[in-house]
Amino acid sequence: MKKYTIEGERMFLERTAISLAAAQQKIKELTITKRTKRVAVTAAHGLVLAETITAPFPQPSFRRSGYDGYGITTADDGAFPITLRLAAEVPAGATFQQKLAAGETVRIMTGAQVPEDVVKVIMLEKTEQLPDGRVLFHEGSRSDNITPIGAEFPQGATLLTAGQRMNAGAISLLSAFGINECLVYEKPRVAVLATGTELLAAGSVPEAGKIYNSNGPLLAALVAENGGALYELGQIADEMATVEETLKRLAQEVDLIITTGGVSVGDFDFLAVAAQDSGQLLFNKLAMRPGSPTTAFVYENTPVLALSGNPGACFTGFYLLVEPLLQAFQGQESRLRQTTLKLAHDYRKKNNFDRYLRGTWREETVALVGSDQSSALGNLHLTTCFFKIPHEQELTAGEEVQVWCLPCK
Amino acid sequence: MKKYTIEGERMFLERTAISLAAAQQKIKELTITKRTKRVAVTAAHGLVLAETITAPFPQPSFRRSGYDGYGITTADDGAFPITLRLAAEVPAGATFQQKLAAGETVRIMTGAQVPEDVVKVIMLEKTEQLPDGRVLFHEGSRSDNITPIGAEFPQGATLLTAGQRMNAGAISLLSAFGINECLVYEKPRVAVLATGTELLAAGSVPEAGKIYNSNGPLLAALVAENGGALYELGQIADEMATVEETLKRLAQEVDLIITTGGVSVGDFDFLAVAAQDSGQLLFNKLAMRPGSPTTAFVYENTPVLALSGNPGACFTGFYLLVEPLLQAFQGQESRLRQTTLKLAHDYRKKNNFDRYLRGTWREETVALVGSDQSSALGNLHLTTCFFKIPHEQELTAGEEVQVWCLPCK
Repeated sequence: MKKYTIEGERMFLERTAISLAAAQQKIKELTITKRTKRVAVTAAHGLVLAETITAPFPQPSFRRSGYDGYGITTADDGAFPITLRLAAEVPAGATFQQKLAAGETVRIMTGAQVPEDVVKVIMLEKTEQLPDGRVLFHEGSRSDNITPIGAEFPQGATLLTAGQRMNAGAISLLSAFGINECLVYEKPRVAVLATGTELLAAGSVPEAGKIYNSNGPLLAALVAENGGALYELGQIADEMATVEETLKRLAQEVDLIITTGGVSVGDFDFLAVAAQDSGQLLFNKLAMRPGSPTTAFVYENTPVLALSGNPGACFTGFYLLVEPLLQAFQGQESRLRQTTLKLAHDYRKKNNFDRYLRGTWREETVALVGSDQSSALGNLHLTTCFFKIPHEQELTAGEEVQVWCLPCK
Repeated sequence: MKKYTIEGERMFLERTAISLAAAQQKIKELTITKRTKRVAVTAAHGLVLAETITAPFPQPSFRRSGYDGYGITTADDGAFPITLRLAAEVPAGATFQQKLAAGETVRIMTGAQVPEDVVKVIMLEKTEQLPDGRVLFHEGSRSDNITPIGAEFPQGATLLTAGQRMNAGAISLLSAFGINECLVYEKPRVAVLATGTELLAAGSVPEAGKIYNSNGPLLAALVAENGGALYELGQIADEMATVEETLKRLAQEVDLIITTGGVSVGDFDFLAVAAQDSGQLLFNKLAMRPGSPTTAFVYENTPVLALSGNPGACFTGFYLLVEPLLQAFQGQESRLRQTTLKLAHDYRKKNNFDRYLRGTWREETVALVGSDQSSALGNLHLTTCFFKIPHEQELTAGEEVQVWCLPCK
């Protein structure tokens, strides 16, 4: 057990740094409640399917013509050229229910149901309509140009598997089977809480020594981009009572609380205290930069991920720690793609912790984008990946580094 | 000029196939109207900035402490250890406006404004608060641990450039400067029109020879995923008058009309006729599979991209022809990333046209996903790229192919 003491308003926490991988594992082991709901297929865009869906009927559901042309019976599928009497036209969507006799043909369009007696569809290009209305077939066809029933999906075949994220293709597939509703994971309800007496809310006039709250809007947008439903975007002062009250209320209302600021070793870092008080501290120091004071705990059964107030650290912590949890609420793994790329430049700063730098990747290389400072604001919008500089190492251009590519960048 | 004749309900179009690149170029050369509007920065998520925004004040806007610690004056920045009298505490967000005398120190928190007379912030770890309240500095510091005004952005520096897509980082950057509104490109208004007498609307009972409309929901979702605003999702029968009326109405109301079906050489392919009638045909045949009858024209000043009714062709045509136009309305290039990868398997089918197959890519290889049939429905949700099999070629595993990676896959 770690200990802390409050002397007046001052507290000192003993902290033991754990690795990022260990922190990620602790978050992975959290007990979370995944909720599901039935929604219209067209409203499921971007949500994750919570059921496996099978074909209610075969696809195609009828013998389908692959071309515009003329259908012939077995009796006439012999010597060509041949001239047949036109019995009917079958546009797509229509049906021809009568018997087709030898010597007769039907005009049939791409996608139309092939009449029962038709064994082949001869492409339009190989035929000629004669002035008397009959049809001359210049040549026959090896292929029957008919797609059999169930050729793509027999009845009962799996269409989509639970865990599929509903994209345009998935929506169209269910639509093709007349399936209008599906069971999906609800987006986790997320509260974002920016702490700091120094924070100015958007729209307020500038004040000496204060800064506009930028991490709140950052996290709100990141939650939305990564499958969460923003429940509340709050901003509170560094006051122990306010922090505790807010956590207490939100823990009843949301699935996940993300905070920014108040986790450092300073006198007013009350989230660090709340983490200790919770009795369910996961970690309060990571062996990484930026974001070493990043803290995670469970507050009255609700996970709280308490990120640093430094913009770069907040951004990095979100992707490496929060994003996987947001996906877990939807039964998914992190959408960051891990790979190994070549560093495009030297990086000569040694650090006692692993550094996760903001970068951009292209083909086989990765490069720092903008500043490597955790306080930097100016490169978050340009970042398409993180890459790791292992502790105590200096790297030279061309060396391989671990890379985490961000989704949708 | 191409010609067509209508004999009864029958028409024959002469068509000349052009290359995909030529078709893309014709679409690129369309005259389009880009509209802009001012929106709240937090509502700009996913939209493209139509103005360049500069810093209204420097960032940081005050001398900022990089650490929790104690500030000292020039007079005391000499021999260590030294013991100083604590004059005040400066939490983040507060200011200390008085003079700081030699022999005095201020407690200062990370992110707080550094008082004018302070020349260095000595980290907390190097100090000790004595029982009498004074502060003992065990050692000094080479670094001043103070971030100067404007260190990241001088006043007037460019924050974001016109053309930037507003993501979480861009929203946070403007928020940090108290900027609450920005000028963005409006999403183009798009109508999606599925044509075909064979189409059943979602929710209707199955009928012999008919199919559920899946391309309509497909295109609606693709429009939403790719920066368009869906204005209307329509479904109409193959009737010349209906096609013409609908195009006429929509041309007044939207920026772009996307249709699916009705472009082939069949008797009821009235979009092909409307394209000819428009007098502003861009193309009505592409030297590619799937989607060779894909047609584009301008109907009363509104571009109409008429895609094939085959699901695979519709999906492919959307990404290769419509997506770049959706981006152009927002001043952007296509978001498909072109690259060259190694084919993971043999592909032995020769075709007289280039084939664009649906695939998935991983590291340096690309592979076909599901069926290569243009009628296939079952692989659209799995597709993460297209790759090209050049006409008249058979390819062997390991050969390089051109690849178009889809955004956000």
